[in-house]
Amino acid sequence: MIKVAVNGYGTIGKRVADAVAAQKDMEIIGVSKTKPSSEALIAVQRGYPIYIADLSKKDAFEKAGIPVAGSVEEMLKKADVIVDGTPGGVGETNKKLYEKAGVKAIWQGGEDHEVAGFSFNAHANYKDAIGRQFVRVVSCNTTGLCRVIKVVDDAFGVVKVRAVMVRRGADPHVVKKGPIDAVVLDPPTIPSHHGPDLNTVLPHINIVTMAMIVPTTQMHMHAITMELKKDASRDEILAIMRKHNRIGLIQPKTAIKSTAELKEYVMDMGRPRSDLWENGVFEASVNMVGKELFFFQAIHQEADVVIENVDAIRAMMGEVKDPETSIRMTNEALQFTAL
Amino acid sequence: MIKVAVNGYGTIGKRVADAVAAQKDMEIIGVSKTKPSSEALIAVQRGYPIYIADLSKKDAFEKAGIPVAGSVEEMLKKADVIVDGTPGGVGETNKKLYEKAGVKAIWQGGEDHEVAGFSFNAHANYKDAIGRQFVRVVSCNTTGLCRVIKVVDDAFGVVKVRAVMVRRGADPHVVKKGPIDAVVLDPPTIPSHHGPDLNTVLPHINIVTMAMIVPTTQMHMHAITMELKKDASRDEILAIMRKHNRIGLIQPKTAIKSTAELKEYVMDMGRPRSDLWENGVFEASVNMVGKELFFFQAIHQEADVVIENVDAIRAMMGEVKDPETSIRMTNEALQFTAL
Amino acid sequence: MIKVAVNGYGTIGKRVADAVAAQKDMEIIGVSKTKPSSEALIAVQRGYPIYIADLSKKDAFEKAGIPVAGSVEEMLKKADVIVDGTPGGVGETNKKLYEKAGVKAIWQGGEDHEVAGFSFNAHANYKDAIGRQFVRVVSCNTTGLCRVIKVVDDAFGVVKVRAVMVRRGADPHVVKKGPIDAVVLDPPTIPSHHGPDLNTVLPHINIVTMAMIVPTTQMHMHAITMELKKDASRDEILAIMRKHNRIGLIQPKTAIKSTAELKEYVMDMGRPRSDLWENGVFEASVNMVGKELFFFQAIHQEADVVIENVDAIRAMMGEVKDPETSIRMTNEALQFTAL
Amino acid sequence: MIKVAVNGYGTIGKRVADAVAAQKDMEIIGVSKTKPSSEALIAVQRGYPIYIADLSKKDAFEKAGIPVAGSVEEMLKKADVIVDGTPGGVGETNKKLYEKAGVKAIWQGGEDHEVAGFSFNAHANYKDAIGRQFVRVVSCNTTGLCRVIKVVDDAFGVVKVRAVMVRRGADPHVVKKGPIDAVVLDPPTIPSHHGPDLNTVLPHINIVTMAMIVPTTQMHMHAITMELKKDASRDEILAIMRKHNRIGLIQPKTAIKSTAELKEYVMDMGRPRSDLWENGVFEASVNMVGKELFFFQAIHQEADVVIENVDAIRAMMGEVKDPETSIRMTNEALQFTAL
Ligand SMILES: NC(=O)c1ccc[n+]([C@@H]2O[C@H](COP(=O)([O-])OP(=O)(O)OC[C@H]3O[C@@H](n4cnc5c(N)ncnc54)[C@H](O)[C@@H]3O)[C@@H](O)[C@H]2O)c1
Ligand SMILES: NC(=O)c1ccc[n+]([C@@H]2O[C@H](COP(=O)([O-])OP(=O)(O)OC[C@H]3O[C@@H](n4cnc5c(N)ncnc54)[C@H](O)[C@@H]3O)[C@@H](O)[C@H]2O)c1
Ligand SMILES: NC(=O)c1ccc[n+]([C@@H]2O[C@H](COP(=O)([O-])OP(=O)(O)OC[C@H]3O[C@@H](n4cnc5c(N)ncnc54)[C@H](O)[C@@H]3O)[C@@H](O)[C@H]2O)c1
Ligand SMILES: NC(=O)c1ccc[n+]([C@@H]2O[C@H](COP(=O)([O-])OP(=O)(O)OC[C@H]3O[C@@H](n4cnc5c(N)ncnc54)[C@H](O)[C@@H]3O)[C@@H](O)[C@H]2O)c1
Repeated sequence: MIKVAVNGYGTIGKRVADAVAAQKDMEIIGVSKTKPSSEALIAVQRGYPIYIADLSKKDAFEKAGIPVAGSVEEMLKKADVIVDGTPGGVGETNKKLYEKAGVKAIWQGGEDHEVAGFSFNAHANYKDAIGRQFVRVVSCNTTGLCRVIKVVDDAFGVVKVRAVMVRRGADPHVVKKGPIDAVVLDPPTIPSHHGPDLNTVLPHINIVTMAMIVPTTQMHMHAITMELKKDASRDEILAIMRKHNRIGLIQPKTAIKSTAELKEYVMDMGRPRSDLWENGVFEASVNMVGKELFFFQAIHQEADVVIENVDAIRAMMGEVKDPETSIRMTNEALQFTAL
Repeated sequence: MIKVAVNGYGTIGKRVADAVAAQKDMEIIGVSKTKPSSEALIAVQRGYPIYIADLSKKDAFEKAGIPVAGSVEEMLKKADVIVDGTPGGVGETNKKLYEKAGVKAIWQGGEDHEVAGFSFNAHANYKDAIGRQFVRVVSCNTTGLCRVIKVVDDAFGVVKVRAVMVRRGADPHVVKKGPIDAVVLDPPTIPSHHGPDLNTVLPHINIVTMAMIVPTTQMHMHAITMELKKDASRDEILAIMRKHNRIGLIQPKTAIKSTAELKEYVMDMGRPRSDLWENGVFEASVNMVGKELFFFQAIHQEADVVIENVDAIRAMMGEVKDPETSIRMTNEALQFTAL
Repeated sequence: MIKVAVNGYGTIGKRVADAVAAQKDMEIIGVSKTKPSSEALIAVQRGYPIYIADLSKKDAFEKAGIPVAGSVEEMLKKADVIVDGTPGGVGETNKKLYEKAGVKAIWQGGEDHEVAGFSFNAHANYKDAIGRQFVRVVSCNTTGLCRVIKVVDDAFGVVKVRAVMVRRGADPHVVKKGPIDAVVLDPPTIPSHHGPDLNTVLPHINIVTMAMIVPTTQMHMHAITMELKKDASRDEILAIMRKHNRIGLIQPKTAIKSTAELKEYVMDMGRPRSDLWENGVFEASVNMVGKELFFFQAIHQEADVVIENVDAIRAMMGEVKDPETSIRMTNEALQFTAL
Repeated sequence: MIKVAVNGYGTIGKRVADAVAAQKDMEIIGVSKTKPSSEALIAVQRGYPIYIADLSKKDAFEKAGIPVAGSVEEMLKKADVIVDGTPGGVGETNKKLYEKAGVKAIWQGGEDHEVAGFSFNAHANYKDAIGRQFVRVVSCNTTGLCRVIKVVDDAFGVVKVRAVMVRRGADPHVVKKGPIDAVVLDPPTIPSHHGPDLNTVLPHINIVTMAMIVPTTQMHMHAITMELKKDASRDEILAIMRKHNRIGLIQPKTAIKSTAELKEYVMDMGRPRSDLWENGVFEASVNMVGKELFFFQAIHQEADVVIENVDAIRAMMGEVKDPETSIRMTNEALQFTAL
């Protein structure tokens, strides 16, 4: 059993914890919280031991009925791998701690590539992660791009990618962040950082990205154009997407035309936390104009990276050498079949 | 086994179907859809037989991989009770159908009191529903008011209620309805219809309500003032709320201050569809000033009436005579304990 | 003086009326309303004679203190040109009326090209509109595309255009339309109709557009890529945009990064109705990658077509033969200089 | 001429500057900015001398084409009265500066009552402000409450006020603040601070307020209940509101039912920045139930305090002793008549 700890039990951390706990070859030995909250109460409900950064707050936790298992340092000692789920920029400051404890660690996309020196996507570079101490799982947007560009590139060759990312303003439960009624260019320059970020995983791809933020909490939407090397028909493109185990095709018969309806659909399916772990490609949008491929995909920011973290753990531990084996193990443990 | 059919498998209908299917004494014998859609696919996944209003559309359903069990009329024949979940105003037009089929039927709050001649809330008037052919479950807002006013009135007597309902603009998956950036008075006159609607269940309550719509999809928020007959302390009020099995108290230790954080909490708890079946009373807001009681409560529009429908079915069938027995059966079958 | 009537005094109609009234060579001889409302009261304030479609409602208008000048038919008789500002699809049904009255008419982008048989943009095809009876001013999005594609095409040649239009869900005062929290593909197929619509004005342009709707009321945002025939530097692109009298460059020193801040800026400038009549190109976003030009532009849906209507009127009347003369007359009468 | 400087030329500051500049007995001798921005460019356009807090940034301003008149300290020396428009909490830290310069100063509602020791509303306590060095104009919400409670109390006596304030999440141009899709209790306790704040102006009023934040940028909405001492008819209430020169009655004939439509109306009227300086009471909502008065009022957060600042200046300078004289001077200079 791979012993996993989650440092920073927030939006991503709590999902990774549940996904890890569902794996046959992994267990959660602890999660960390900075203060008592509804999320800490959920960790109690799940039976995850709770460690805290600042032991002087132990009383506050216990008054709230949340037992404290020890300090974060103690948690690090018990784990084989740490999944760092602290906010963007904070993760980096934890590196020393992990080095000192000699523990493997995974950061999220809010950190720079340099923090780990290696950026991960299961379908793209699982093998290169085998045995590594430090790995960074790329952001939700970059993960979504990696999956779809990799599969198309493998099949038909990609001359260039031009992508517009229409990003959600904040996660559903985050009430302080906006915008309320605006489209915000983020950044107002072109290209955005998403292209270079993709290149940390797929260095040879010619990509330019443009990004903006809109007042929604549900999902990101990508409007993607790819120029292909070889001729491809719409049906061939749909076929490779359909075959991919982390790309979902939203079929016209669902009548789904928006992120909100898509979220409702996976909610109705009973997915934990209504999570869309796969890319949500709108089948009706997939189109070829000459050698140019066009499509829309929805990316559930809270979910797609979660399963990548699980594979990253497996790769780093080195037992499972084959990416597809790990991906299948991860998906199956979650009873997850892409749409 | 009570045979239940859901006519109109939408936001409310699909939830009632699942809640009914979870009961030991009930089963779903069919649900109706008007056209193929993601919801119809969900009904297939759940194993509910699908009936359609217009049999000429059978082909369209079957092309979409959705088997059709028959017409709505055939469905009515097989059921003991119909839960009508069609849109407000449509339900009324189905009355003739139900009369002709001689079947019991439940309408939702989008219909007028007159359609059934009896308006229902489990804690308030379960016994009066016993044996009835037609019952209307009051709207989400009225259900939320009924629960809390009834329990306070029983304990301390209510002189009058003044309530402001800040309503969500549309359900999460409804993308055509607004507003996007406005507070809309609905109605711009005072009182709103919620007071008279409450009086269909609790006729003796002096109540004036004011209602508006805001750009959110999550939940309604009620700001409530009640003048009490007897003296009551804040602790006494909290005690009766805590004891109530469909009123939840959102504790300060959760740090939850908004509808969105509350939704996240029940999502994290693993509730199906992240549903808040109970009133969500913010414990920190409960306050007594003289004999006036003040508090905020969140009402999950999609969820609170669902369990009331289950009890209404039981009351109408007449086997279970005691309200608390039915309420406990309903809650337990859903593994539901109020916050 | 060109006598202009506005049939349908709504979002577009009221703005066109004011813009026309500001011109030295034009006057408003009447506007039409279907019922008393705040907009009708504004027409009274402006001194525009009010005509009504249904004379049986005369009393209702007069009770509300709104004098009625006559029927729409009477208005048509007094006018040289009608600007039809009725809702999309309604305009078409008015064609017979205009034909019968033998009056010139302008439709808006909500109607199909075929209603007029000629689609207009001042910089692109003013001369072709000279003397015509019927003209359609293309939609806000298409107008924004026309301006910028035309000027770049003239200077450097355009091989192809790929554009993503992130559209506002509803105008600011429209409270019934959503979405509230979703990105809605509209259409969920690619291409959207904007490309073909642009081709009604600039038939030779190779263009593919993708469109979605987001929960904002302020403006549309376009993410545009153009492949150019000739080499061009970023400075050369900026120079032709800066010179264009209906393209504004939002300078970095303003620190404006969003539609909302841009709206605030033109509001602070004192523009009537805070209208952005020009394309709002974000200077910092303009970039050349090889022969590909990238940039973001904000399009104020309520405003950009307004001044095009004024030029269309002048072209149809035929006195002013030179596009730039008309454009300058229109702009100057509004004291409008592009950002 | 009263020499006025605005320290903090933001949402409130820029409006106060324009309102002051429009007065016959006042002039703007300077405004302060901390960095170059669109607002600084607007100050240039208006011809207001620009002073900066940190003279080392002079170059940055001048590179952006914004001439710098000097330091904030120099500005203070030239002014009779400073209007402090810095963000809530910052204003307080400027007190020493104003004391040192021996200049009169006005703070806004983001500061505590204690910073000035006197809280102002023109209709309520103008006379008590005469000659004062330091005054605080109460917040937008409190200003809206003061006006309407004062006039009703004077006419009929107020036994108690219960008010629910449904607040806008952020000003229109503020894109970082949310919420996007939530109702946020602010505070989650009852009462909110608005009651005590009102008591700094009208100490004898029995008032309990409840406050929440919703995802809109337009205006606040108040749902108000007042118990009156004397009998009053709806018509009598409407009459005193109609007579009040800073309370507007939104008439049913306008068909306005929301903040957004109201904003559109004042925009169409040509008001600078579409500002609603008056309380926007929805006439249709005004109702008497026994001795209880109910109504809704919209409060334009950016605007209502602006004109109160102008009167506060006049009161502090002491020339105009009569409140109504000052109020009329202020309103007339802005060509403002309440709806
Ligand atoms: N939320 C998303 O949509 C999303 C998607 C992909 C990647 N990411 C990335 O995942 C990472 C986490 O983001 P999130 O959205 O889950 O953040 P979050 O704010 O939801 O959760 C962060 C958690 O870390 C805890 N924390 C804060 N400081 C800490 C410290 N010093 N030590 C231990 N715990 C601490 C917080 O209490 C919180 O529970 C970021 O790098 C982010 O960029 C987020
Ligand atoms: N959604 C809520 O928040 C909510 C809360 C409480 C009560 N209600 C009430 O519940 C009722 C249903 O509302 P909803 O929100 O679930 O609506 P919905 O639109 O989500 O679902 C209605 C369903 O009825 C189907 N339908 C439409 N016409 C039909 C017909 N003629 N025959 C059979 N099926 C038909 C539709 O296909 C859809 O599946 C209404 O009375 C409403 O007022 C809704
Ligand atoms: N609003 C925009 O953003 C926008 C932008 C560009 C183009 N357009 C196009 O402009 C046209 C008008 O749109 P709008 O947004 O101004 O609509 P609107 O709804 O704001 O105004 C339409 C007006 O027409 C009146 N009307 C309705 N039916 C009528 C009839 N039969 N006869 C006379 N008057 C009637 C209505 O009372 C209303 O005043 C549409 O074609 C639309 O697609 C709109
Ligand atoms: N915006 C509203 O709706 C509203 C309504 C009523 C009252 N108020 C109150 O008015 C005050 C100002 O609020 P606002 O919304 O106008 O804020 P704002 O952020 O729009 O403007 C504040 C301005 O002060 C400047 N500033 C910041 N620090 C400064 C410093 N140290 N010295 C000089 N200038 C500085 C900023 O550059 C900015 O221009 C606050 O007390 C607020 O609570 C605001």
